[in-house]
Amino acid sequence: MTQMKILTEADLRAVVSLDLEAVDCVESAFHALATKAVAMPPILRLDIPEYRGEVDVKTAYVPGIEGFAIKISPGFFDNPKIGLPSTNGMMVLLSSRTGLVQALLLDNGYLTDVRTAAAGAVAAKHLARKDASVAAVLGAGMQAKLQLQALALVRPIREARIWARDHAKAEAAADELAEKLGIPVTAVSDAKAAVSGAHVIITTTPSVTPILKAEWLEKGQHVTAMGSDAEHKNEIEPAAIGRADLYVADSLAQTRRLGELHHAIEAGVVGAGRDFPELGQIIAGQRPGRADAAQITIADLTGTGIQDTAIATLAFTRANAADAGTTFES
Amino acid sequence: MTQMKILTEADLRAVVSLDLEAVDCVESAFHALATKAVAMPPILRLDIPEYRGEVDVKTAYVPGIEGFAIKISPGFFDNPKIGLPSTNGMMVLLSSRTGLVQALLLDNGYLTDVRTAAAGAVAAKHLARKDASVAAVLGAGMQAKLQLQALALVRPIREARIWARDHAKAEAAADELAEKLGIPVTAVSDAKAAVSGAHVIITTTPSVTPILKAEWLEKGQHVTAMGSDAEHKNEIEPAAIGRADLYVADSLAQTRRLGELHHAIEAGVVGAGRDFPELGQIIAGQRPGRADAAQITIADLTGTGIQDTAIATLAFTRANAADAGTTFES
Repeated sequence: MTQMKILTEADLRAVVSLDLEAVDCVESAFHALATKAVAMPPILRLDIPEYRGEVDVKTAYVPGIEGFAIKISPGFFDNPKIGLPSTNGMMVLLSSRTGLVQALLLDNGYLTDVRTAAAGAVAAKHLARKDASVAAVLGAGMQAKLQLQALALVRPIREARIWARDHAKAEAAADELAEKLGIPVTAVSDAKAAVSGAHVIITTTPSVTPILKAEWLEKGQHVTAMGSDAEHKNEIEPAAIGRADLYVADSLAQTRRLGELHHAIEAGVVGAGRDFPELGQIIAGQRPGRADAAQITIADLTGTGIQDTAIATLAFTRANAADAGTTFES
Repeated sequence: MTQMKILTEADLRAVVSLDLEAVDCVESAFHALATKAVAMPPILRLDIPEYRGEVDVKTAYVPGIEGFAIKISPGFFDNPKIGLPSTNGMMVLLSSRTGLVQALLLDNGYLTDVRTAAAGAVAAKHLARKDASVAAVLGAGMQAKLQLQALALVRPIREARIWARDHAKAEAAADELAEKLGIPVTAVSDAKAAVSGAHVIITTTPSVTPILKAEWLEKGQHVTAMGSDAEHKNEIEPAAIGRADLYVADSLAQTRRLGELHHAIEAGVVGAGRDFPELGQIIAGQRPGRADAAQITIADLTGTGIQDTAIATLAFTRANAADAGTTFES
């Protein structure tokens, strides 16, 4: 008999929120990636073109952490037509010692939302100017909103601009965030104008053609690109990678294959074998981060299994402490 | 809110057993692999050497089947020291149309046992002599026993021999199977003697050095090798692949990489690019199976995600019909 804990989305929302502890937990995971013998196999991906569906399965084992998560993330892009969300998902947390299932985290993608936003905060914490106070967010979905909230945890943000293809959606997001963060947040109809004068730019769209032009970038800006989690997605003009003083990957093996870097390599802007630092190496002090307030920095976040293992472990620990969830035997 | 069904091992044992319907269901899956645009990505594998642990994640989508399974199979080989089984696992069944989780099959590996044995029966049905009546099983574990039971569903087996490194284990298995099948089953201490005169030979061990010698093979014999599901495992002497009149893979891409074929290629017995039929192609009549009663045939079964999708779908359909399991919302 195996005993496991089942945690619903409601259980998980009650114990995990997008706060500094979540940011710390994801930061530690990136640190481990640079300093420990982390095992993080390539993503398993299944495509179901008949229904515009795709499923990613990610995992990572971090030595010293009691459990590891296997995350199942489906994206079915015709779902909204029948009133269902297009993304979804769950995580299975297994014991690192025995392989037994410890918990089923039926989060419907909530933990992914949190750990993705937290990674954005970690990138800004290590790469954006310390005094960064103006943010521009390209995109107005769930992740756009969470990224701005996460950024505000680590930098003294006092003003934000939001641009999206659908201006009405940008306006709604701006209103919601102004209320939530207590700062002026403006929906801007021109992406270039949104970016101009911002200290931190976050791209959060599923775009397949660049929405951020290289020539728009100004001295001192930090860009976090988090939309490109598949080969065909591309938010940043390849030339921007060439213009940046510092390009940082969450996982270089992965961004060479499916991040913004991959498009810059394809465009011939950078060589395929060129070395770049990873976020974890900068956190661990192995490689330098931003050198001065004038540098242009880019963080290319494609999403990694260590983030899932980190947030799932945090959720499980907190759920146990709160005695949340349902215990199940099989 | 997502509604899903949770089925425990006990629920699943009550609705799925190793019978002809299970064999048919796995046969249809192999047929689909040869005739439909099946999507079956490479296995995701995570190794945790500190605890002699490994986890495989398999999946496959078969057009026309309502759901697809993602199977998580951990193997932690120090578990028996602390009184736990070394293998375990569960499946997640998702809707092919929406990606929503339909069911969590907490089978602890039971469905894998059934679908693996069923695949052995499918191989024997299409490759062994129709009048095959004497079976030799090398190995005496759970799968050895299930393979013999599965074989008896498709061939008129009237006598069986079991060989295992641990003779006492072979004797216990022989007693159990004689009782269950109502035929003489003998534990044999010499593998060569077990194989001599048998019509069907099944190898079911985790051996990393060949236990079946090429020179032992006799005219008319069929061999199903199902133990080699990882690069380092090897049950059949490479020369046997050269001696066989017909070699059949469950998935040629996979047996070239981790089956018995992979060792024959490494040993230089067959060329790396040499073409061989797959089981599904023979089932679908696209390629010839056994031509006559004198041929030596070998089926190399490494385990495929389509088998999981097939058995998970059967289990879910039957569980719904029986109103088994627990409904859960998240």
